Amino acid sequence: VRTIDWVDDAVVIIDQRLLPDEVRLVSLESVADVALAIRTLAVRGAMALGVAGALGLALAAREAVRDRQDVAEAVESAAAELLATRPTAVNLGWGIRRVLARVTDGPQAVIDEALSMLDEDVHKNRRLSMLGADFLDEVHGPPHRVLTHCNAGALACVDWGTALGVVRSSYERGRLAEVLVPETRPLLQGARLTAWELGQLGIPHFLITDSAGPGLIAGGRVDAVVVGADRIAANGDVANKVGTYGLALAAARAGVPFIVAAPESTIDQHTRDGTQIPIEQRAGDEVVGFQGYRTAPNGTRALNPAFDITPADLVTAIVTEDRVIRIGSGEKPASTSAEPALVDGTVAVTEGVRR
Amino acid sequence: VRTIDWVDDAVVIIDQRLLPDEVRLVSLESVADVALAIRTLAVRGAMALGVAGALGLALAAREAVRDRQDVAEAVESAAAELLATRPTAVNLGWGIRRVLARVTDGPQAVIDEALSMLDEDVHKNRRLSMLGADFLDEVHGPPHRVLTHCNAGALACVDWGTALGVVRSSYERGRLAEVLVPETRPLLQGARLTAWELGQLGIPHFLITDSAGPGLIAGGRVDAVVVGADRIAANGDVANKVGTYGLALAAARAGVPFIVAAPESTIDQHTRDGTQIPIEQRAGDEVVGFQGYRTAPNGTRALNPAFDITPADLVTAIVTEDRVIRIGSGEKPASTSAEPALVDGTVAVTEGVRR
Repeated sequence: VRTIDWVDDAVVIIDQRLLPDEVRLVSLESVADVALAIRTLAVRGAMALGVAGALGLALAAREAVRDRQDVAEAVESAAAELLATRPTAVNLGWGIRRVLARVTDGPQAVIDEALSMLDEDVHKNRRLSMLGADFLDEVHGPPHRVLTHCNAGALACVDWGTALGVVRSSYERGRLAEVLVPETRPLLQGARLTAWELGQLGIPHFLITDSAGPGLIAGGRVDAVVVGADRIAANGDVANKVGTYGLALAAARAGVPFIVAAPESTIDQHTRDGTQIPIEQRAGDEVVGFQGYRTAPNGTRALNPAFDITPADLVTAIVTEDRVIRIGSGEKPASTSAEPALVDGTVAVTEGVRR
Repeated sequence: VRTIDWVDDAVVIIDQRLLPDEVRLVSLESVADVALAIRTLAVRGAMALGVAGALGLALAAREAVRDRQDVAEAVESAAAELLATRPTAVNLGWGIRRVLARVTDGPQAVIDEALSMLDEDVHKNRRLSMLGADFLDEVHGPPHRVLTHCNAGALACVDWGTALGVVRSSYERGRLAEVLVPETRPLLQGARLTAWELGQLGIPHFLITDSAGPGLIAGGRVDAVVVGADRIAANGDVANKVGTYGLALAAARAGVPFIVAAPESTIDQHTRDGTQIPIEQRAGDEVVGFQGYRTAPNGTRALNPAFDITPADLVTAIVTEDRVIRIGSGEKPASTSAEPALVDGTVAVTEGVRR
């Protein structure tokens, strides 16, 4: 089962709010359904968001045809609605703009473009994971003890995963010893999603509190930190789930490699550095309690930034489906295949041919 | 109401496991009651543990007199039982050894020594808090926005608090703007205890996830980090609640002062540096769920270090009841009034005269 898919003219997702207790598939029949699913994190993760945005436009195109309305107008209106859901992840905008670029070719082109992104995502993740597993072997002699934050696994993508994909590829090669998984408050993607994925795959792992990561890194318990990204600036600064920055500081001080695993589409050439990346501020309700149970006194106010910025100087390398960008050796993310795709979709076609 | 007190020949504590929902006083009638209360964190915090250990011996002495048993034997056996409860906090051993040194003077001397520590704790904390508030004004122009981790408030002491005591003194002077409070997983001392204390005092505060601290410090939201300590090594390395190290790394990088507020008794001259401090590993149950509600999949294993070590080079200063040790300027904790107390209780007498 894929995390997000297109079945019978609807978007079908695994509702991630119910994991690990229940694996429930939910059918999203309208753009409003998709927007709500994104906002409530029923679907989340940089890659999955890109595909969700694209498939949302496919839904809009299909609906416009059925109701004999203007397709371009419907798709553009849907694009605006979906773009407004979450500000930090650049992939959401990337997926939406890529499909939007096909709207002049008619509704079927919109739908085809969106659907092409499903298989493409899986293939990219697998290539990225092989490169990442190679790089892990390069920076550290196996077996590897890896710490990964939040969930950049199959549940953050269509399938397979990015940071957790690297872990998975390394494990398949017999080179991975264990994974440390910070629980990732407030929404516990580590405890609920990553621990669940690793359990399904039979990969040895330990859950830890988010606070424990830096001390365990300093204590020699971690050979490499591997995380995903929600947006990478042109200078190599990385926005990722809140808590990533503290792990990067600890890794740098301990001389432990800090590796970012994310597809080219996560690199935003239009963002000069981390100071330009908008950080989503989510509701304080998520912090003062836990799934309906209140932990703090009534009336306690909370700040809830969902992401933080890890400066490029703390990053050892960024691994994409195409390359290893050795930030630690002075390399910078440069203009890549991701950018033309925003303009005319050429790359998507190339991708299709390549696989 | 004091966090821990001696009432009608029993130790009376606020049961901190029930806060913030309920303020319940519990009477501990035996050494075994005290040991269980310490182990389950019904009473916790470096200062409160020191007093709890001491009052536990007073209970043992009183009981031995009542049952016509050997007082020295009973007190020494109680000391061994209580010392084994928690390994990291040095104050527990300090309180126990200080009272133990009086056992040759008979049961009343044991009880008097233990009881003298109640008022003494409050007076020390108040002096420490004044010095800390002075130092805050020295390193940063008011108003101050302070981040404090875990709970080093009245609930960690007999009354008033250490790190939160500094916050309180600064607020009383009209120089404190707001406090950021990491929730402090797994047992949520920040959300349950510190937010509650600040609410009672009317001091403006925001709860945050533990992960959010480093990014908020980097983003300019924090003027100083002020924390307590469970043990300070002779070289200035600090053991404190897990998560402190990541905050110290972020503070150092941002040029934000990192201040440790703890009494002289927290300084362990016999511990050369942080590598010699034993880190308590608590049960994984605390991490895989939350107050009985399971968050991770069944069978998930967890690591649960309760403390981490912040190296001295990340510490701006240690503030005690007697002095400001400017670690950032090369000062080291040197032999102090705390040490003779371990041997013959002289300082306790001096303290008694001073107040």
